[in-house]
Amino acid sequence: MVRIENISIIGLGIIGGSLAKAITKRGLSKKVTGIDIDEKIVKKALEEKVIDRGSINLETVKGSDLIFICTYVMNIPKILQEISPYLKQNSIVTDVGSTKEMVMARARDFLPKGAYFVGGHPMAGSEQSGFLFSRQDMFDKMPYIITPYNDTPKVVIEALKDIIEGIGAKVVIMSPEQHDYVVGLVSHIPQIMASAIVNFTKEVEGCDRVIGKGYLDFTRIVSSNPRMWKDILLSNKGNILELLARLRNRLETLEELIETGDEQGIKEFFCKARSYREGLQ
Amino acid sequence: MVRIENISIIGLGIIGGSLAKAITKRGLSKKVTGIDIDEKIVKKALEEKVIDRGSINLETVKGSDLIFICTYVMNIPKILQEISPYLKQNSIVTDVGSTKEMVMARARDFLPKGAYFVGGHPMAGSEQSGFLFSRQDMFDKMPYIITPYNDTPKVVIEALKDIIEGIGAKVVIMSPEQHDYVVGLVSHIPQIMASAIVNFTKEVEGCDRVIGKGYLDFTRIVSSNPRMWKDILLSNKGNILELLARLRNRLETLEELIETGDEQGIKEFFCKARSYREGLQ
Repeated sequence: MVRIENISIIGLGIIGGSLAKAITKRGLSKKVTGIDIDEKIVKKALEEKVIDRGSINLETVKGSDLIFICTYVMNIPKILQEISPYLKQNSIVTDVGSTKEMVMARARDFLPKGAYFVGGHPMAGSEQSGFLFSRQDMFDKMPYIITPYNDTPKVVIEALKDIIEGIGAKVVIMSPEQHDYVVGLVSHIPQIMASAIVNFTKEVEGCDRVIGKGYLDFTRIVSSNPRMWKDILLSNKGNILELLARLRNRLETLEELIETGDEQGIKEFFCKARSYREGLQ
Repeated sequence: MVRIENISIIGLGIIGGSLAKAITKRGLSKKVTGIDIDEKIVKKALEEKVIDRGSINLETVKGSDLIFICTYVMNIPKILQEISPYLKQNSIVTDVGSTKEMVMARARDFLPKGAYFVGGHPMAGSEQSGFLFSRQDMFDKMPYIITPYNDTPKVVIEALKDIIEGIGAKVVIMSPEQHDYVVGLVSHIPQIMASAIVNFTKEVEGCDRVIGKGYLDFTRIVSSNPRMWKDILLSNKGNILELLARLRNRLETLEELIETGDEQGIKEFFCKARSYREGLQ
């Protein structure tokens, strides 16, 4: 059994902050350490008693049983490299990045023997960012994807799973490859489409006068962090380009239905979407 | 001056029902008549005192100063033709359809001399449909587009505008051509994209396990009435095909940025969208 009594969280943004709050308030770990490059955020988290110990130095992870890396995707490999000397035997390192293949391919190069990396991705958060928007109930009933390697010991997966279920999330286990494809479709493609439509809207006179609730719902995700999204697109390039191509084919089929005035076909297109969407919530 | 003391509403769905509630509860008309093909709905509206008089016959519009047609877009011309014999001098007929050019081109053929048609489109409603979901505050602070003809008398526009402002909406006046283009972009294209992505999601295994709040927001509009959307696509065919083509060009530009790994370009794409979106709400 892997005992988790000492958790470190690197990056106290909306996700890292919410993890700290959820873990501390639910008493899931004897000690919670928070590390952030912004000293003010560390101080705030300490004041709010969301962490037991705070630091701006990565070496503070020393002695941790479980470490969450909650930074931009592109920074994760560098952080793995830097914390590597401080990792103890049987410690688990996980991240919360939106893409998994790139990070997991590199994690093996940096981690010392006896320490384990397991990819993680909570399908939670909001269009906001920063510690200010973190909430202890952020993960409640939300999917939290875990992507182990083929040879990750079962005890390691179980230990991480216990913590994730402890914060109220629904654990979903899949390979990093499957993760990047399905998340590409349900998260990255919507982000791209909503942003492309917003940019288009911006350039057409009169649009801003007719915006209703539907548009606001559809484009809510557009307010999220551009730097984060740049990292996601670049680290999931292959899947995103493939998904965009496949989506284009689907749109071409619809365009043909419109062109030929195929009432039945168009109705089916919308009916099919509605029946699936209604099953979701 | 055109006096509005007698309003008829044809079609007591979510929009017609909300109009009846808003007009009656705010006392904007001496008499409100509700007409629907479903007798049960008419009875319900009468019981709820949302209308003063109810009927399943179109000729009940007789004597109305203002008539709202709140049916599927494709049915509007037929209804215009059928109510035409009962229209009195200086009466105003308007609709709430999501496309305007097609209806307005045909309205002239059917309306008797001395009666006026002015297109209307409240950017309100929700993904639900039916009288059950109608609300008296549905139009509060929402844009309500009015599309007059070039020669529509100013008094006619003002009389309609008074009622629309009376129910709490923000009146936006534009030509039917501009309406169909800008609404095509802010409403029809999002509906198509969200539906296409939902249909795609449905076919990729594992997607349903990783759906989070962002996807649910982005696809909320997909639950709305397929029959209504079929009518919208067919009656705004030209604009929708053009907008889809232009959107495709924009996506190709983004794909190039991803392909070449242009970090700055990708970041700008998301930054630009975020800054516009944040200005909206």
